[in-house]
Amino acid sequence: MAKTKTAESTKAIMTELVLPNDTNTLGNLMGGRLLHWLDICAAISAHRCSNRIVVTAAVNNVSFSHPIKLGDIITLEAKVSRCFNSSMEVVIDVFVEDHRTGAKTKCNDAIYTFVAVDQMGSPIEAPEVIPETEEEKSRYEAALRRRQLSLILAGKMKPEEATELKKLFS
Amino acid sequence: MAKTKTAESTKAIMTELVLPNDTNTLGNLMGGRLLHWLDICAAISAHRCSNRIVVTAAVNNVSFSHPIKLGDIITLEAKVSRCFNSSMEVVIDVFVEDHRTGAKTKCNDAIYTFVAVDQMGSPIEAPEVIPETEEEKSRYEAALRRRQLSLILAGKMKPEEATELKKLFS
Amino acid sequence: MAKTKTAESTKAIMTELVLPNDTNTLGNLMGGRLLHWLDICAAISAHRCSNRIVVTAAVNNVSFSHPIKLGDIITLEAKVSRCFNSSMEVVIDVFVEDHRTGAKTKCNDAIYTFVAVDQMGSPIEAPEVIPETEEEKSRYEAALRRRQLSLILAGKMKPEEATELKKLFS
Amino acid sequence: MAKTKTAESTKAIMTELVLPNDTNTLGNLMGGRLLHWLDICAAISAHRCSNRIVVTAAVNNVSFSHPIKLGDIITLEAKVSRCFNSSMEVVIDVFVEDHRTGAKTKCNDAIYTFVAVDQMGSPIEAPEVIPETEEEKSRYEAALRRRQLSLILAGKMKPEEATELKKLFS
Amino acid sequence: MAKTKTAESTKAIMTELVLPNDTNTLGNLMGGRLLHWLDICAAISAHRCSNRIVVTAAVNNVSFSHPIKLGDIITLEAKVSRCFNSSMEVVIDVFVEDHRTGAKTKCNDAIYTFVAVDQMGSPIEAPEVIPETEEEKSRYEAALRRRQLSLILAGKMKPEEATELKKLFS
Amino acid sequence: MAKTKTAESTKAIMTELVLPNDTNTLGNLMGGRLLHWLDICAAISAHRCSNRIVVTAAVNNVSFSHPIKLGDIITLEAKVSRCFNSSMEVVIDVFVEDHRTGAKTKCNDAIYTFVAVDQMGSPIEAPEVIPETEEEKSRYEAALRRRQLSLILAGKMKPEEATELKKLFS
Repeated sequence: MAKTKTAESTKAIMTELVLPNDTNTLGNLMGGRLLHWLDICAAISAHRCSNRIVVTAAVNNVSFSHPIKLGDIITLEAKVSRCFNSSMEVVIDVFVEDHRTGAKTKCNDAIYTFVAVDQMGSPIEAPEVIPETEEEKSRYEAALRRRQLSLILAGKMKPEEATELKKLFS
Repeated sequence: MAKTKTAESTKAIMTELVLPNDTNTLGNLMGGRLLHWLDICAAISAHRCSNRIVVTAAVNNVSFSHPIKLGDIITLEAKVSRCFNSSMEVVIDVFVEDHRTGAKTKCNDAIYTFVAVDQMGSPIEAPEVIPETEEEKSRYEAALRRRQLSLILAGKMKPEEATELKKLFS
Repeated sequence: MAKTKTAESTKAIMTELVLPNDTNTLGNLMGGRLLHWLDICAAISAHRCSNRIVVTAAVNNVSFSHPIKLGDIITLEAKVSRCFNSSMEVVIDVFVEDHRTGAKTKCNDAIYTFVAVDQMGSPIEAPEVIPETEEEKSRYEAALRRRQLSLILAGKMKPEEATELKKLFS
Repeated sequence: MAKTKTAESTKAIMTELVLPNDTNTLGNLMGGRLLHWLDICAAISAHRCSNRIVVTAAVNNVSFSHPIKLGDIITLEAKVSRCFNSSMEVVIDVFVEDHRTGAKTKCNDAIYTFVAVDQMGSPIEAPEVIPETEEEKSRYEAALRRRQLSLILAGKMKPEEATELKKLFS
Repeated sequence: MAKTKTAESTKAIMTELVLPNDTNTLGNLMGGRLLHWLDICAAISAHRCSNRIVVTAAVNNVSFSHPIKLGDIITLEAKVSRCFNSSMEVVIDVFVEDHRTGAKTKCNDAIYTFVAVDQMGSPIEAPEVIPETEEEKSRYEAALRRRQLSLILAGKMKPEEATELKKLFS
Repeated sequence: MAKTKTAESTKAIMTELVLPNDTNTLGNLMGGRLLHWLDICAAISAHRCSNRIVVTAAVNNVSFSHPIKLGDIITLEAKVSRCFNSSMEVVIDVFVEDHRTGAKTKCNDAIYTFVAVDQMGSPIEAPEVIPETEEEKSRYEAALRRRQLSLILAGKMKPEEATELKKLFS
């Protein structure tokens, strides 16, 4: 009963204000707090894609390049990049807003994988995602390489079968 | 040093998932939790308007017409409707998403007032807000009536001076 | 099966200490936190009035005139001012305590409306509230004006029918 | 610079609603949560006694005889029973309210000890507490026995010097 | 169906980082927060002893001798010291780690009592605990004195029957 | 000023009880909550390695293979696997305990990267980690492959220079 969805229709936007109980001893946003917000924002996007209960299956990669300060406003924007059976890869961009000028700069991105499940927790097929913009298409392609990589790292695929990934090393 | 801003440029969007610790004994979102989220979303909008520290000055009106259930996704959209010296009236619309069809329906609206302050907490003039759409213009007009009403209720304006409001009763 | 209750018998007192995670970047109590506490305190008062599950129906008016600081002790005192069928108007006074002298000063008041419901969430008639003190009587009177005002603002009453309210403008 | 205070003037009342995130897997209020509330309520009472920063020095005894359920309203009432130099013994009574009849029954009591400190965290003398009611007087007497007992258990007093306590065993 | 368990097999270790929302206005860990962590750590130990749902029955004694600072790492180590029918006495040691040298020093100890219950909340017999080390044996002995003391204080045992305790005063 | 540390000396153990406010609508532990705990446990391990303030630099991989239920006890065990200049790779194993038999089974593992910084937030060299057991040695080797992979994915290393990684695909 799976259908198609545009990547755009799975978009979720979350805005948060960094409060004292979100910070570490340097006065910066704690990594664990951001991971929690990323999980909720990505879950909402995966939910909009599948209209099903969704559960976190993996966090594939998150990097924290810029410290985010107490009082900053951050915006999370998540979209499903591609589905593989019941699993949905979600890419989330994090932007921080300068509280004087209001200028937004990107400070993080993250990739989470969710699985659509039924009321009993059994996996259910997710819809096919249709990328439209250039960025959506490029992330749709990269999703396959990342999936091959994670299957190899989990010992579920042989490196020589990872056609997309092999190109990187040849 | 106040300037003008379009209402659209003050827009803040927040998406939240209703989790077990947000609910009351009926399994519905607690009023106090929603009030907290409304406050943060409105503060971000007021901040985008003034690029200053903002503090909550008043909650003018919030009504909770439809119960919001555990597991629902809610979206808050806030925009500054009008400024009066240092105070900014923010209108927030709350939408709830049906978790089967994905259809969004409006379930609440709320009006908060914020004041822009400097580092010492003293009020600072806020920019003038320019309404563009029909809805923004209608809320801009209504903001004046609400301000007159709250000045009367606080005993700071005589009813006969409330020109906008008097029309309602004549 | 509704009965009568004195306003005094619906009184709820809540004392809270302002901790670091309750404050904003200025070190003051966040508006959203206070709104959450007001909601709980008012809910307890409405519960004592009706002995039923109660749900927040509206926040009619809250103003934040004085900043409350980290470390301050605040006391919330709520009483049902008047009932209209299943809805109960609750007035909450907020006092802050000077942590040197112990002197209490009033810093806020707020008006919330709750509805008494049964296990399925359907409205149930609330008891009639009997005001006894001067302040209770004056709030009982004002509750009718506020109710007319909110019915007008919601488009459920014509301004010319708001007999109590019209007196203000004539 | 210590002075006297009546026990009554140190009274602190806190009302809390047991919400889902306060409960254990049986749907009852978690012990740890109640201990946290007791600490805050007792701290407020000790603060009202000393008008100083207060820090928890010991929890002498708390028993949890009756389970408290989700949705229950509980009231904590704390009063300083007696001071010994910089330390203040606080007795807290916990009442639970039947949500049908509104009847209040006592379900717990607890004894905490706080120390009054200055801005640097050094102990400062607390005022002398004057018991007035029968219950206050009886708790004032018992406080000395408890203090002797805790000094013995900590190895800071010899059992034969604990004049008050010895009477129990002779 | 009760069996025996070694004290060692009931050990639970919890490590926590003191974050801004755990501190009071002096920047030290709040007593109430530590009490909450102690309750969870002790509950896990009691659970490992009984493999049953456990509920907090009493906090017998906790003293807070050294302030714990923001940013400190604390380790809680809990072991069941002795069981009496359905009740289990748990002793918890708290260590704090110097964040420069990494040296661990003991800063607190606490004694909690838990009761093993079935799904309906009725008490169930707990296993017999076998102490092995010197410290375990000494705490096993002391547990009996503490139990006699708490039975006397609760009026459930006559002082002259408290054979273990009487030795202290003779 | 960097020195050496054994992997064992960086070990951090954290035990948590899954409470109602940690669960999603299926009654399972939420991914975001576990990510938060993993971050704190890994931070403590990195701190024990460097005796410095540490900040989260990346989450390299976390997979959630088994649902963790309300009431389960989970244990997190973190150790630094290898350092590269100021960055420390931490591997965390997650175990869940059957609440009837007490049997522990591994349910997750995760890899986080932390950076040691000074009071101003500037990176500082971390000590060299000495692996001793077979598992520590194997994770020490794998850490280099993972580092090469993440440098390639970030465009900071050419695939042909990733000597360790290339072996996988040849």
